[in-house]
Formats: sequence, C-alpha cells, structure tokens
Amino acid sequence: MKFVSFIVDNESSYGLAVEEGIIDLRPAFGNRAADLKALIAGGLLQEAARARAAGVLRQPGEVRLLPVIPNPGKIVCAGLNYADHVRETGRQVTEDPVLFLRVPESQAAHGEDIVLPPESGKLDYEGEIAVILGQGGRRIAEVAAWDHIAGYACYNDGSLRDWQTSTSQWTAGKNFWRTGAFGPWMVTADEIPPDRKMTLTTRLNGVEMQRATSDMLIHSIPRLIAYISTFMPLAPGDVIVTGTPGGVGMKRMPPVFMKEGDIVEVEVDAIGVLRNRIGRE
Amino acid sequence: MKFVSFIVDNESSYGLAVEEGIIDLRPAFGNRAADLKALIAGGLLQEAARARAAGVLRQPGEVRLLPVIPNPGKIVCAGLNYADHVRETGRQVTEDPVLFLRVPESQAAHGEDIVLPPESGKLDYEGEIAVILGQGGRRIAEVAAWDHIAGYACYNDGSLRDWQTSTSQWTAGKNFWRTGAFGPWMVTADEIPPDRKMTLTTRLNGVEMQRATSDMLIHSIPRLIAYISTFMPLAPGDVIVTGTPGGVGMKRMPPVFMKEGDIVEVEVDAIGVLRNRIGRE
Repeated sequence: MKFVSFIVDNESSYGLAVEEGIIDLRPAFGNRAADLKALIAGGLLQEAARARAAGVLRQPGEVRLLPVIPNPGKIVCAGLNYADHVRETGRQVTEDPVLFLRVPESQAAHGEDIVLPPESGKLDYEGEIAVILGQGGRRIAEVAAWDHIAGYACYNDGSLRDWQTSTSQWTAGKNFWRTGAFGPWMVTADEIPPDRKMTLTTRLNGVEMQRATSDMLIHSIPRLIAYISTFMPLAPGDVIVTGTPGGVGMKRMPPVFMKEGDIVEVEVDAIGVLRNRIGRE
Repeated sequence: MKFVSFIVDNESSYGLAVEEGIIDLRPAFGNRAADLKALIAGGLLQEAARARAAGVLRQPGEVRLLPVIPNPGKIVCAGLNYADHVRETGRQVTEDPVLFLRVPESQAAHGEDIVLPPESGKLDYEGEIAVILGQGGRRIAEVAAWDHIAGYACYNDGSLRDWQTSTSQWTAGKNFWRTGAFGPWMVTADEIPPDRKMTLTTRLNGVEMQRATSDMLIHSIPRLIAYISTFMPLAPGDVIVTGTPGGVGMKRMPPVFMKEGDIVEVEVDAIGVLRNRIGRE
C-alpha cells in the first residue's frame, strides 16, 4: 500500500494513494492516530489498509500533499554511501557511515517547489532512497533490522553546496528551508522484500543525472539501522536517508546547479517518482 | 525567574525553581500550555511568573527534573567557537559558525546520570552556554536577535570522541543517548542583559577544567541566531548551544576521559550549576 500525508479542508490528514485518488483515513481513525507517524507508532498500517472502505475518497486536486512524514522525530542522512559518489568528491570510504541530520522544516512535499534561497546559487540535487522506521529500538541487530522498517520513499537531499562546505560540518547547506523533498508516498515494507534490488534515478529537466541500484550501497540499509541505533534510540516515523550516487551537479564539468523553473525527479522503481519544481523564495 | 521541566506524580510538568522548592505551574495553566516549550510559544512566561501563588509548591525530592526543554524542535550546536579550543584542536577559525545538531534523546537532566555507553571509553565533557529561543523567526537580524531569546541554561555537550571523529561528520559522537546535559533551569532573558559578561567554568571531580567568558565567543549569540535563522526558521523552545572553550579532556596530555562515578559540573555565574554523575549503561 502507498501511504500519504496531506492537507485537506485546511486540516492535516493521511491516507492511501490509490488509482482513483486519495483515500482519507483520518476520519476513520480519529483520535487513535493524529498523523501518519502515529498510525505507524500504533502498529495500525495493516488495519488502515483494510479500512479502505471506511475512508473518504478525495480527488488529487482536493488535497495538498505533505512530506511523507511531515514531523519525523529524526531525519538521519548518510553521506558518501555509493562508491562513485565517494570518488567524485575526492574523499575516502570510511568504515563507519558518514551521518548528518536534517530538520523537518528543511523538507518539501512531492509536487511542492523546492526553494532556492536568495543566499545561494548552488542548489544541488541528491536522489536517494528513504527508509521510514516502523518499530523503534536501540542497538537493533542487522539481521533484525528489516523488521523495523515501515516502508520506503524517494528523497531529494537538496543541498546548498557553498553553505555545506563553508565549514567542516555540512549542517547549514543541508538544512535550508524546504530543500529536502520527501515523497511521493510511503510504500509499505511488505511490498519491497529485502532481496529486491531497487533502481534509483535522478532526472533534471528530463535528463538522467544519477543512476544506481540499492545493492551498490556501501553501508546497507540494515547496517545503517544497526549503526545509528547503537548510539540513539530509533522511533516509529524516524527517517533514514541512505545516501546519493555519483553524478551530483557540483562535481560535473562544468558544475550544474538548479535554477528557478527546473524540474527535478527522483525515481525509485519499487516506489514511484518524486517530482519537484525549483522555485524562488 | 528560573523555569524548570520535571516529572511529578508520573506526569510531566513545568514550573518555577524558588528558594522553598519548585512551584508546579502546570495545574494553573492546564490546556493552555502542556509543557515549557508551549508556555514559551504562548508568550506566557511573564504570566507564569506572576501566577506563582496559583502554583503548587513541591519539595525537590518530589520531582524528577527533566532537561530544561525536554522536547526542543531543534538543538543547534556551535563547534570551535572559542579561540583556545580552536587552537587545541589544531583547526582554523572559520568565517561561518561550525554547526551540528543534537537530537532530544541525547539529552540528560540536571542531577541525572550522563551515560557512558559500552561502545566507547572516550566520553568527554564540553561546558557551554545554551540559549533558548522565545520568539521564532527566519532571517532574524543580529540587532534584533536579543529580543528572540526566552532564556539561558548550562549545557554539557557530552561527546564520545572516537565516534565523533571516525568520519568527517560529528553526528554519531554527539548524539549518544543521554550524554548532553541541559539544566539546571532556564534563567529568563530579562535577568541577563545583553551586556552581561557570563563566566563559564567546567569542573571534573571538583577540579576546574575549562573557563571562559561569553565575550570570548568567536561567533556571538546574536550572530549565531542570525546565521542559523538564515537557513532555517527558528521556533520557540529551539536550543542553540554556543560552543565550548579550551580545556576539553581529549586534548589534554595525557587525555582525560570521564568514567563511572565521576562528577562533572558546568557553571555559568549568571545561571547556576549543572551537575551530573557519570553512570554506566
């Protein structure tokens, strides 16, 4: 099933993306789950999928999508996690994953503009596979990690390259308001078994810029879950963004940065297409 | 006034630290403010201070303190923000502040054990001054920044040095569960005028390890607020941790790391003393 978060009639809600439109499940769950994060935390995804008939069908034009999880407790991003991207940056593969954090305010929804701020002209794309935690935990073993996943989404870890590299820590360039697109929906983990090789592509104005498969991750999804949960407890709805392959704009000759009106798409074959226009603030 | 967050009768609450004990204000505010962050966001600090008589006096033994803000939306930490610390690390002063993020789960309360995890023996202290945002905003001008501060607290930005430096990004070593102490209370900004030079000291088992004054900050408090709010909107209850002076354990000869049973104190003369024992997980 495909779960989405959205605004309808000025209220935030969540539901299922289906062929006919969007099934609003919030009315069916009421106080039991205020948002998709709470639905996950309550272990209610399967029940929600079955509650389809009790939901209200909405047409796409009636709703405004939100980032898949609008309010994750933590957004943990892996950097330098594909060999070709490590090479193009001139850095080294590290035994431990390279991690940084994004804040929820840095996120944008599918179909919403990614925002180019006036402070930088160096807005770059980074297509990635995002993992949404289902069951939380601390020191989750790699072999158990798959069971802690609620689902998957596409992520565009949009980065302001000059702000990212002005000091050793990438925080500023990775946390500009509304630069990290997260969508279009969460495909539940039961539809993407652990042995499914996912293909990730990023297109800028229709031109393919990045391509990789999930088996090329240096630190695999279970390894990331195990490593991160060694130091911090993971919680339902937490997001792990698994890293971007080679082909980022900054490292091209000449460099390619996104400008107003550009259309950037992150596609994961097992998930769907996350599409955003670049807007000016 | 000194505001605290705490657990009493298994419920989370907040109130005022006074000579006689702790005045529980949650009963007086009920649904108007569920926690200290909401009290700040509601602009209710002054009203809360006046509501003292309507609160319930609790003895210190009745309550279990929480981190000053237990659930900040963002915890933004500055690194390398005192010249002597920059020198001891062998790094360079940067024009922009060096920033990293902590997650709320990494915080500990005044009087609570800071937790030494089994995965590392390199737990280091970092005494710091924390700023708690009152009024949020984006692109807050330096000259206006003081008006956005709700108050100040002490912070011990506890760091697992091996995990911090195993890659270029400090995230893991800065986010171990319950390693960042935040307390003992928030002194409201009206009691600490902008021109007040605060003296920060860190003591390990009674021995002074760090000492600095707030005028020695490379990137001042208003500069940090202005810089951070350039890329992300700041919100009430957000925490900015302003950086640590020279004298960290890792850079001593021989290095000093904290071990079980150690007592670490961060004192800011204008605020008070944040005191924690080191415990084993």
